[in-house]
Amino acid sequence: MGNIHEECGVFGVYANRPTHVADIVYYGLYALQHRGQESCGITVNDDGIFVSQKGLGLVGEVFTRSSLASFPSGSIAVGHTRYSTTGCASIKNCQPIEVDHQKGKLAIAHNGNLSNASKLRSDLELSGAIFHTSSDTEIIAYLITKERLRTNCIEDAVSHAVELLEGAFSLVIMSARKLICVRDKHGFRPLCYGIMPDGTYTIASESCALDAVGARFVRDVEPGEMIIFSPEGILFRHEHCRSAPAKHCIFEYIYFSRPDSVLDGIAVHGSRVRAGEILAEEHPAKADIVIGVPDSGLDAALGYSRRSGMPYSIGLIKNKYVGRTFIVPDGRMNQVRIKLSAVGEELAGKSVVLIDDSIVRGTTSERIIALLREAGAKEIHMRVTAPPFLFPCYYGTDVNSRDELIALNKTPDEIAKMIGADSLGFFPLSRLHEYVNGLGLCNACFSGEYPTEVKSVTNKNRFERKLSDTVD
Amino acid sequence: MGNIHEECGVFGVYANRPTHVADIVYYGLYALQHRGQESCGITVNDDGIFVSQKGLGLVGEVFTRSSLASFPSGSIAVGHTRYSTTGCASIKNCQPIEVDHQKGKLAIAHNGNLSNASKLRSDLELSGAIFHTSSDTEIIAYLITKERLRTNCIEDAVSHAVELLEGAFSLVIMSARKLICVRDKHGFRPLCYGIMPDGTYTIASESCALDAVGARFVRDVEPGEMIIFSPEGILFRHEHCRSAPAKHCIFEYIYFSRPDSVLDGIAVHGSRVRAGEILAEEHPAKADIVIGVPDSGLDAALGYSRRSGMPYSIGLIKNKYVGRTFIVPDGRMNQVRIKLSAVGEELAGKSVVLIDDSIVRGTTSERIIALLREAGAKEIHMRVTAPPFLFPCYYGTDVNSRDELIALNKTPDEIAKMIGADSLGFFPLSRLHEYVNGLGLCNACFSGEYPTEVKSVTNKNRFERKLSDTVD
Amino acid sequence: MGNIHEECGVFGVYANRPTHVADIVYYGLYALQHRGQESCGITVNDDGIFVSQKGLGLVGEVFTRSSLASFPSGSIAVGHTRYSTTGCASIKNCQPIEVDHQKGKLAIAHNGNLSNASKLRSDLELSGAIFHTSSDTEIIAYLITKERLRTNCIEDAVSHAVELLEGAFSLVIMSARKLICVRDKHGFRPLCYGIMPDGTYTIASESCALDAVGARFVRDVEPGEMIIFSPEGILFRHEHCRSAPAKHCIFEYIYFSRPDSVLDGIAVHGSRVRAGEILAEEHPAKADIVIGVPDSGLDAALGYSRRSGMPYSIGLIKNKYVGRTFIVPDGRMNQVRIKLSAVGEELAGKSVVLIDDSIVRGTTSERIIALLREAGAKEIHMRVTAPPFLFPCYYGTDVNSRDELIALNKTPDEIAKMIGADSLGFFPLSRLHEYVNGLGLCNACFSGEYPTEVKSVTNKNRFERKLSDTVD
Amino acid sequence: MGNIHEECGVFGVYANRPTHVADIVYYGLYALQHRGQESCGITVNDDGIFVSQKGLGLVGEVFTRSSLASFPSGSIAVGHTRYSTTGCASIKNCQPIEVDHQKGKLAIAHNGNLSNASKLRSDLELSGAIFHTSSDTEIIAYLITKERLRTNCIEDAVSHAVELLEGAFSLVIMSARKLICVRDKHGFRPLCYGIMPDGTYTIASESCALDAVGARFVRDVEPGEMIIFSPEGILFRHEHCRSAPAKHCIFEYIYFSRPDSVLDGIAVHGSRVRAGEILAEEHPAKADIVIGVPDSGLDAALGYSRRSGMPYSIGLIKNKYVGRTFIVPDGRMNQVRIKLSAVGEELAGKSVVLIDDSIVRGTTSERIIALLREAGAKEIHMRVTAPPFLFPCYYGTDVNSRDELIALNKTPDEIAKMIGADSLGFFPLSRLHEYVNGLGLCNACFSGEYPTEVKSVTNKNRFERKLSDTVD
Repeated sequence: MGNIHEECGVFGVYANRPTHVADIVYYGLYALQHRGQESCGITVNDDGIFVSQKGLGLVGEVFTRSSLASFPSGSIAVGHTRYSTTGCASIKNCQPIEVDHQKGKLAIAHNGNLSNASKLRSDLELSGAIFHTSSDTEIIAYLITKERLRTNCIEDAVSHAVELLEGAFSLVIMSARKLICVRDKHGFRPLCYGIMPDGTYTIASESCALDAVGARFVRDVEPGEMIIFSPEGILFRHEHCRSAPAKHCIFEYIYFSRPDSVLDGIAVHGSRVRAGEILAEEHPAKADIVIGVPDSGLDAALGYSRRSGMPYSIGLIKNKYVGRTFIVPDGRMNQVRIKLSAVGEELAGKSVVLIDDSIVRGTTSERIIALLREAGAKEIHMRVTAPPFLFPCYYGTDVNSRDELIALNKTPDEIAKMIGADSLGFFPLSRLHEYVNGLGLCNACFSGEYPTEVKSVTNKNRFERKLSDTVD
Repeated sequence: MGNIHEECGVFGVYANRPTHVADIVYYGLYALQHRGQESCGITVNDDGIFVSQKGLGLVGEVFTRSSLASFPSGSIAVGHTRYSTTGCASIKNCQPIEVDHQKGKLAIAHNGNLSNASKLRSDLELSGAIFHTSSDTEIIAYLITKERLRTNCIEDAVSHAVELLEGAFSLVIMSARKLICVRDKHGFRPLCYGIMPDGTYTIASESCALDAVGARFVRDVEPGEMIIFSPEGILFRHEHCRSAPAKHCIFEYIYFSRPDSVLDGIAVHGSRVRAGEILAEEHPAKADIVIGVPDSGLDAALGYSRRSGMPYSIGLIKNKYVGRTFIVPDGRMNQVRIKLSAVGEELAGKSVVLIDDSIVRGTTSERIIALLREAGAKEIHMRVTAPPFLFPCYYGTDVNSRDELIALNKTPDEIAKMIGADSLGFFPLSRLHEYVNGLGLCNACFSGEYPTEVKSVTNKNRFERKLSDTVD
Repeated sequence: MGNIHEECGVFGVYANRPTHVADIVYYGLYALQHRGQESCGITVNDDGIFVSQKGLGLVGEVFTRSSLASFPSGSIAVGHTRYSTTGCASIKNCQPIEVDHQKGKLAIAHNGNLSNASKLRSDLELSGAIFHTSSDTEIIAYLITKERLRTNCIEDAVSHAVELLEGAFSLVIMSARKLICVRDKHGFRPLCYGIMPDGTYTIASESCALDAVGARFVRDVEPGEMIIFSPEGILFRHEHCRSAPAKHCIFEYIYFSRPDSVLDGIAVHGSRVRAGEILAEEHPAKADIVIGVPDSGLDAALGYSRRSGMPYSIGLIKNKYVGRTFIVPDGRMNQVRIKLSAVGEELAGKSVVLIDDSIVRGTTSERIIALLREAGAKEIHMRVTAPPFLFPCYYGTDVNSRDELIALNKTPDEIAKMIGADSLGFFPLSRLHEYVNGLGLCNACFSGEYPTEVKSVTNKNRFERKLSDTVD
Repeated sequence: MGNIHEECGVFGVYANRPTHVADIVYYGLYALQHRGQESCGITVNDDGIFVSQKGLGLVGEVFTRSSLASFPSGSIAVGHTRYSTTGCASIKNCQPIEVDHQKGKLAIAHNGNLSNASKLRSDLELSGAIFHTSSDTEIIAYLITKERLRTNCIEDAVSHAVELLEGAFSLVIMSARKLICVRDKHGFRPLCYGIMPDGTYTIASESCALDAVGARFVRDVEPGEMIIFSPEGILFRHEHCRSAPAKHCIFEYIYFSRPDSVLDGIAVHGSRVRAGEILAEEHPAKADIVIGVPDSGLDAALGYSRRSGMPYSIGLIKNKYVGRTFIVPDGRMNQVRIKLSAVGEELAGKSVVLIDDSIVRGTTSERIIALLREAGAKEIHMRVTAPPFLFPCYYGTDVNSRDELIALNKTPDEIAKMIGADSLGFFPLSRLHEYVNGLGLCNACFSGEYPTEVKSVTNKNRFERKLSDTVD
């Protein structure tokens, strides 16, 4: 519905013997589907032979019963779901990325965005590198490969390469014999691991994917930490840990992650309930009911209801079949009507507090409010669980173009008027840390305070060159 | 998730001039997708030429942007979504069914199930009829055609044919110049119509589909009523009305219909909230929170919470990507884990009232309860918004095999023990009428009191013959 | 390439025990693919349960390894390849047609065209029949079903029904226990049967399909003959034989059938060689080489060369990959260049006799001649193995619209000028019988002498009604 | 049918203004389809933006009307059809290969095989290169990119890179502004260019593809020559010309190329007719007719017939629908029967000279001869237009495994006995040069005389590593 997209979900499996690892990854990716609906892929390591299937589409579309059955057994596997932030939607940008180098093979799955990608790529090209894709992940692959030539083992190569990367990255890397996961020193993007009853280790972007495969959550990968699963056991390396302050992406809690996930010790559902409570304190309203825009506004609606004492209700229903394949055949139809519908009985004649996670351009909010009015809502007080978006994100989300951000040029009152709300309240920037009980967080998209150096506005297709950029 | 399926959704459009009626039907079917995910189809009437597209799959799969654009403009159209109750899943059973007869053409979309289908079919075959499908709808097509030869107009033919049908049927019938809708005299299945701002009429199984296309709800089609939309205007015929008591299917309110629909004057969401309130009265429990199994248990959880005063909470999250294409690669994995996940923070150490719409075989309930316990729930008091299933349905739903119904051989306490609940309460049969404020209803699946004569247990593939049944 | 199309190929298998009959049909249909590239289908009889797969496209497209493997074993099967002469290209017109009737089941595959279809259909509709398709085959299915109600066995029903049919039909009919083939009394379309080494019987439109499955050719089905394969043995019924003169379609020999087939005792290759010899006698030319337009002109080129003593050569090469899927992206390109190419070395500076099977509109001939001239051919003497088309065909081919037939309004000399040939000779009508050693033949498309009563020009979509034809 | 495969066809277009270049490539690839049926691709240069479509399958399968229409206009394009000799069939090995480097972009289409690929790849990997595919073409891309960093223009980079390559390569390379074609100094694989009436230049593996798009053949690209098409005009560079003797692959004339192509001044059809004449001189036979195995044996059969005076005939028909999608469902069926059929009338009682292009394992010849005998052939004298295969090819064809080559361990008489022929004659190695009027040729597969250094037997998947080869 919204205009902000997460970029990716990563998943890894390390079993101590050959088994149907592809099935486990398939389940894990299903649980991470919300982190990327554009493409997905699985690479299985069958005794050193890498077998991959990748494609554009949802997990349930790319993998069929027969394609899944055609994977060999293996003891290691990685998987990826993707919404592209760097690089356009194309089969060649699908991950895991696989590379062949002098000392072996790698498959890499990446969640995040490098803030120094342009510089790294330029340097590599000057040394003779050629790029097949426009994704950051290929840059990482190159750096690891270069380091691998000088080092004794893949984990040293990864450790050295990681030093060169700035920005957000949660990586799962598979070599012939090892599974490695590593998280940037700020911990922008989540990453955790768990263990299944039979001793198989699983790595995932969110804990919900560990639950999905029946794995017990062990712990989050620490910012800067690298964990190596190999036949020799598990090795934890901390040379990059605590070298920088934690900067967990606050939008993971506000919108991206699933409410049943626990990220860096903070349960997402709970953080949203808390956000609703804070909104009730900061922007009280006198109304008959509190409703949330499904799905991401529901938890905060519960919090607002609890703190304010006004009854929680179900005022909007989401059509669960509307997905990527939904077509808007012509302009005459109002697609918000198909995606959401109002429950007239709960709304007629009522004054309503409406909770949503964010306002980007305002058009969707405007249509939702019109829907509620049509169903008889008397007053509508909109409360938003995020502060206004004002700055682009360079760490792997899709808040890029400043021109479309409604909050740039309008006050909350002006926005309220524009979208037809009787009142409008945004979550206060000053209390964002309460979402996460004081953990270090990145709120650059609201505050403009970037944890790393960022040079200029980039856009999603920055590596797609036009004739004017080239010589030959 | 469950084991009970609705059979079909029907939709019709009558515009007063050629327009992109297929687009309107597409939107309408999207809103009725929950009534049948097995196949769907649209037939457009382009000045007497019928153009159809039908296929196995969801609306979003069968129709692509280009296939939808390839429909001609037309002034009438019908659409259908299907879960088969009679006739196996097959492209040839897709509806609308089209027929060519001596005096013209028909396209028929049907929701319901005839209880005298076997007899009707046998009689027709003896008179030389051949059947291409195993669906009831072809029987209806034959009867209308036969009557059409003796009558002056299609509406008389439909009226006569309808006299021969017993059981549940909500029909939308398109001829060269007319759109006709008719509902059986008991009104088992819902049917209503509305009008769009430009004067286009739309007919739908549920009011939510009128909302989806921006049509204003006019009213329900009365049990036994036939409405004819034609260039001559709208004609209402009531010769079959009030000839039998209303017998609205109670399961439409309990589970099938969307909560934002209003059926025969009763808002579905409201009826479910009321059911939750009644459960709180009949089966009180002392607990910390009330949660519902999404999506159909949420409204009643709200009602239980309101009546009991115990706080409503969100304890289970549904994976919105799990649909028809989800594969269970092998038996090792627990698929309930992928479909549902528990929100640990809300559940840990809590005593929980859990609301679901029904228990069929009990296995799903057992797994959900295990999931909640794993997440730390201390006590689980399950409350079910339906009475125990005890009898097969002959009117278009999928409650057929008595062998699998857990309630047949077990008391509620035994079931509670089996599924791991601390207590279990079913909705009382005696108060079912409160769901619908006293409207006449069919509760045969709970009570065994069938509104029409039913002979013997039928099964879904009853018209698929084996060699032993045949002569040649 | 041409504008004349055959309509269908039929194939049947009767094994004495369950086996992979679908595989045999698959091979048989591959050999009959030239008789219809629009759609195909296979129906297998698994102990009375009929399992079908049908689709639009070539045999190699409709059936995949896995779809073919998914057929059950069975002891009887029928298959069909189709180019529609009656009824537009649509999945619902795919054959075999299956019907359920009071006394069992039927699957019917049909090659031919009824000349009294309109009357038969009208009568059936008046008796209450409804039609799902616009094909003749459904009419046949109805008639057999009606008769079956009055008779003791399916073969009697078929025999009675056949009496009502006028025109061309070679039918393969499968019931629960029997496989029946029947050919119209004139024998318009070919039909033969053979036996495989293991005793399995196969029926095919052309003998080449018997060869393809390794079956020994037994004999042609006689005009009017009905053969019944059943567990009781093989029964030959001759009640309709010799009731009318043989009228084998001459165009089967000229163009439709494969050169390696033998039809009614006449080898197709040999008949074409003979035609070339006759052309050499009737239209001699002084040239350096004789070449044929591949594939159907090659045999006659050999005959012309043999009789005239001028050397046979290979002057045109056909691109074997150009098929149904070939796209002509825009008008700029000359598609004949992709389909055919000239062998410059053989042509440069040469005087050429060019043999083709027919001239319909003349445009293709014009382009081929231009291609030869471009490659350096000095003189081009075109010889055509058919007389000029002057009349529509009502027996299952696609020579329908008189407007497009170039020979209607032009003399051979005028046509020669138009297409750029130095001379042009058609096969003489008076010697057509020499193609088939004096067998009775139908040459109505050349002579206008129709073996059955024909009323008026019909067109392919005659059963597609418009609004103006209808009442309701 | 056979066991020897060509690897690739390349095609390029240089128009002087934006136009639908993709359509021209599509036609060109259709004409080159016989050079590779495994995958194909087109890359269009739209003012410096490269747009590609590639896929597994035939040209007619990979490109649909709508996919072709979705290409932008452009002034340059390259296309490729592929049968893999290096690298397994996989979407990632599809060509054209595209690379992004510091100074621009490249798309490369390659026909041939490097004989020093292993060494080149190893050196590149040691310098930090990573490989995404297992194809030689990626090695070439790397080398050009590396050189490009040190040079002023792409053509200098290509010129330097080419110095490092050993073996066979005909390359078409597209940069942002230029189209470059280059052929190895031995001229193993063919390459030529032509001009369309509107001044558009086209480059193709074979002249037949120039004819297909209506381009006038200008001339062959010389061995070692590089031609650069750019806005500045056409530049011919000859620094690598005449540095080595011409070594045209003789198998292009024997089998690979289309008979209507002219390669390096020699018409393929003519060379095959000549081969037939030579076989008649070297291995005369007394027979009634001469027939060829279609399609590649037909021209030589004509030559044998002409020289011997024995009549040419058509004895075998090829099923034109049997292609990549043909399935052999089980072992019971003889697939040669589907692919080829015998024309009984021409063969019965006859003594036959049968011409085929080669014998690899002998099994196909055995089955063809059995087919002819079954059709009544009395004597069969097989003549083969190639000498016996004795050595692997390292220059881009598929004659690899010495174990399967029947001629390695058997004399012609032993082979004749094995395949059931009455006599067998191979083309004499000593007269191979007569095929091509004395041009320099490579006949290493027959003679073992390799024009370049070759180390050891390689196999097709040599770059697919197993665990045992790796460290990590």
